[in-house]
Amino acid sequence: MGSPPSGFIIASESLDSREFKPLNPEDFRDKAHKAVDFIADYYKNVENYPVLSQVQPGFLKNRLSETPPDMPESFDTILRDVQNDIIPGITHWLSPNFFAYFPASVSTAAFVGEMLCTCFNTVGFNWVASPAATELEMVVMDWLATMLHLPKSFMFSGSGGGVLQSTTTESCLCTLVAARDRVLNEIGIGHIGKLVVYGSDQTHSMFKKVCKLAGIDPKNIRAIPTRVEDEFSLSPSILRKVIQADVEQGLVPLYLCVTIGTTSTTAVDPIKDLAEVANKNNMWVHIDGAYGGNACICPEYRHFLDGVEKVDSLSLSPHKWLLSYAECCCLWMKNPDLIVNALRTNPEYLRNKHSESDSVVSYKDWQVGTARRFKSLRLWFMLRSYGVQNLQKHIRTDVQMAITFERLVKSDVKFEVVTPRRFALVCFRLKQLNGFDTELLNKKLLERVNSTGRVYLTHTAVGGIYMLRFVVGATLTEERHVINAWEVIKEMANTMVHEYES
Amino acid sequence: MGSPPSGFIIASESLDSREFKPLNPEDFRDKAHKAVDFIADYYKNVENYPVLSQVQPGFLKNRLSETPPDMPESFDTILRDVQNDIIPGITHWLSPNFFAYFPASVSTAAFVGEMLCTCFNTVGFNWVASPAATELEMVVMDWLATMLHLPKSFMFSGSGGGVLQSTTTESCLCTLVAARDRVLNEIGIGHIGKLVVYGSDQTHSMFKKVCKLAGIDPKNIRAIPTRVEDEFSLSPSILRKVIQADVEQGLVPLYLCVTIGTTSTTAVDPIKDLAEVANKNNMWVHIDGAYGGNACICPEYRHFLDGVEKVDSLSLSPHKWLLSYAECCCLWMKNPDLIVNALRTNPEYLRNKHSESDSVVSYKDWQVGTARRFKSLRLWFMLRSYGVQNLQKHIRTDVQMAITFERLVKSDVKFEVVTPRRFALVCFRLKQLNGFDTELLNKKLLERVNSTGRVYLTHTAVGGIYMLRFVVGATLTEERHVINAWEVIKEMANTMVHEYES
Repeated sequence: MGSPPSGFIIASESLDSREFKPLNPEDFRDKAHKAVDFIADYYKNVENYPVLSQVQPGFLKNRLSETPPDMPESFDTILRDVQNDIIPGITHWLSPNFFAYFPASVSTAAFVGEMLCTCFNTVGFNWVASPAATELEMVVMDWLATMLHLPKSFMFSGSGGGVLQSTTTESCLCTLVAARDRVLNEIGIGHIGKLVVYGSDQTHSMFKKVCKLAGIDPKNIRAIPTRVEDEFSLSPSILRKVIQADVEQGLVPLYLCVTIGTTSTTAVDPIKDLAEVANKNNMWVHIDGAYGGNACICPEYRHFLDGVEKVDSLSLSPHKWLLSYAECCCLWMKNPDLIVNALRTNPEYLRNKHSESDSVVSYKDWQVGTARRFKSLRLWFMLRSYGVQNLQKHIRTDVQMAITFERLVKSDVKFEVVTPRRFALVCFRLKQLNGFDTELLNKKLLERVNSTGRVYLTHTAVGGIYMLRFVVGATLTEERHVINAWEVIKEMANTMVHEYES
Repeated sequence: MGSPPSGFIIASESLDSREFKPLNPEDFRDKAHKAVDFIADYYKNVENYPVLSQVQPGFLKNRLSETPPDMPESFDTILRDVQNDIIPGITHWLSPNFFAYFPASVSTAAFVGEMLCTCFNTVGFNWVASPAATELEMVVMDWLATMLHLPKSFMFSGSGGGVLQSTTTESCLCTLVAARDRVLNEIGIGHIGKLVVYGSDQTHSMFKKVCKLAGIDPKNIRAIPTRVEDEFSLSPSILRKVIQADVEQGLVPLYLCVTIGTTSTTAVDPIKDLAEVANKNNMWVHIDGAYGGNACICPEYRHFLDGVEKVDSLSLSPHKWLLSYAECCCLWMKNPDLIVNALRTNPEYLRNKHSESDSVVSYKDWQVGTARRFKSLRLWFMLRSYGVQNLQKHIRTDVQMAITFERLVKSDVKFEVVTPRRFALVCFRLKQLNGFDTELLNKKLLERVNSTGRVYLTHTAVGGIYMLRFVVGATLTEERHVINAWEVIKEMANTMVHEYES
């Protein structure tokens, strides 16, 4: 303790300063090293765990105390409980046998970047609160924009800019509100009930949530039906008609959400033609490229972004395919001022000469929350550790493994591929069998496959067809896992066919 | 590689499966251990860095390449660049000399919990996607509720429940939308323009943002003026009058946000009396206890929550005072069904027997996004590693150090404490000096103090008074840092007084 200033006597009742020290650096070092070994061992063994957790609802409550402990428990006890109580209840997203939803994509580099993000714990709501956090995010967003060959109008080095959000939902909400306020500033907030938003019946479910959050009348949310002949992509001519009908009713078209790689079947909406329709109606166009957008870092997929110069904003989630762990969604905008106009706060306690001079970006005005973490570190580590060429290779390897799976499905007469494969998702199903209900058959197959714990895949239904989804994307997946998964599926199907035929 | 199924030939053009392996467990182990040592060393040295970054806008752009690298760079190079390029641009929130805003509160236990959260990378949007993630969050939320002596109506073991959000903004947005939709379902969405929301002029700036996000007409957002005689808390009698006037205008009172520990001066709104006013008008009442709510785990502060049984929801942020790193906000609700009704999505691709049976919680319907991380791990580690008694001691030690600072201020006739200290924030200023403008004087003092890099504090202005804010709360702060900070402030003040008097 420094000596007190002269004339000042430290009160005798003052507690021994920090007798409880929750961040002793050497204690930190010791425990964090133990945690690293625990995690490395987990990654080494993860393929041996049942990929889909086999516990029943309520499993954990009975294993844990109802109240928090009054006194400290030892680190080793807690780590042991992670192994014994938590891990059995985890569905292992990092297992190489995970082919469900869209798998989560991770890497050593992003992990270390995330450790440093946690370490610094900067709360970078504005520039001065941590200049490096704001500036690295700007650099990284421009790097990724370069990799996607986005027009300069989306880059800080041009006239736009990018920001890291946690989720696509947040990206969509912020841009929708920017679009909404731009229009309401003209027509008056009393007309909020006239605003209409557009997506397809394949647009992610978050879109409806976002529109409801933003106060859009639910009956003005258009989920335009897609057709099998368009491969479940949104048709520009149908969009035009729907908009026209709304305009004739005196409604105001506001916002169009198009998708590169829909969740059910990875359908791709034709951006250029759709944007032209929307542009004629002065609407905001947002591209949700959460999954498929990542592939556009490869020249052979970049054409899916053709027409991007005609849209207002684009989001994609590196946590889905670019090795960066969860809650990492990139959002680029042509006109960030519009989002700032809608979301800006300016409390006295955050004012400072830099923000006042408008010479710096205040990222709190580009997002829902005020606080924000130093998330760009993980992308920076990831991009530098691997380089663009390896990231392209990563996308291509996953696609190649999906092609392997597709061929295996096609080689078996009992199965069929239901929708065309575009990225690393294969939609398939057991064909009609002896008059049994095909949907029920495939539901049972899915349940049996997943209950083995050897593979996890999920389903969808599009155009009235129930189908199984097999996505290659977990970072640890190798071709042997894909082939093994097919073996499990085939084995379960054969057993079922045998049961049904006998 | 497993042997291919008979009759199937692996295509010769197939890539060597995963020749690029971004998650090799032994490589992970090696690099993560290096990162741990880097971080432990950082924590050891953090007090020696200038706490407020002294860089100028644009500092980083020139140090980094404009484009991402094509080929990998070495881990050591990147870590060196963190040291040389990033750290100088960081405002060190973990420095023991950080007394600005509300400091960020961290611990070894929460760090390890966060490492495991990143490690598992579960995306727990619903129960089946990772049962342990949902169930541990439920357990931990009930634990914290127990520590706060919340009524059973806010707990899963009673009739309510809690959820982890990233920020207070998100907590407030979700509850506001739940409240909004409950009313609009009765009066019709066409009346959205009639809804009125209430806070005080001291309510956090996020509140206005939240209301705008939710489509509330900005002219219906009431920021009711507070008075010095109420110590800047919201007056129930004034609230009653404002509501009455709105009702007489045909408007519909919707939502009241009350605060335990306002950002500027840690004022506490009288919950019980305010809730009674709101209850009479069928409004939703939310408590924002982001900072001050944490103190209520100590019996001597619990009275601030008196009347909590009359409110609908409560949020507080352990990242502000309970050692848990950033983006960790707890939200409890009496009637979670209302939030689920407002935010529920139910796409085919996420359906499963557990969610359909309503026997489990689907946390995606309690928040803005779909994806969510396994954040309860860090709270679980923190609570078990330290126990309730140490956490209470932690709060009390910070308050005690703030009392020490307050006494130092009071011992110097040039200074005055401006508002009563309630938690660990002291609002103070240099008194009037020789006719010089007091605000300008204090602004200059702040700038000089912060430019030393030895201390970082911030300011606010309330009731027309510009004041300096000194908050004890950084985990590493000990009494010697508080005393040293006072020495710096006093030294700068003396120099200024000398300049102004000469």
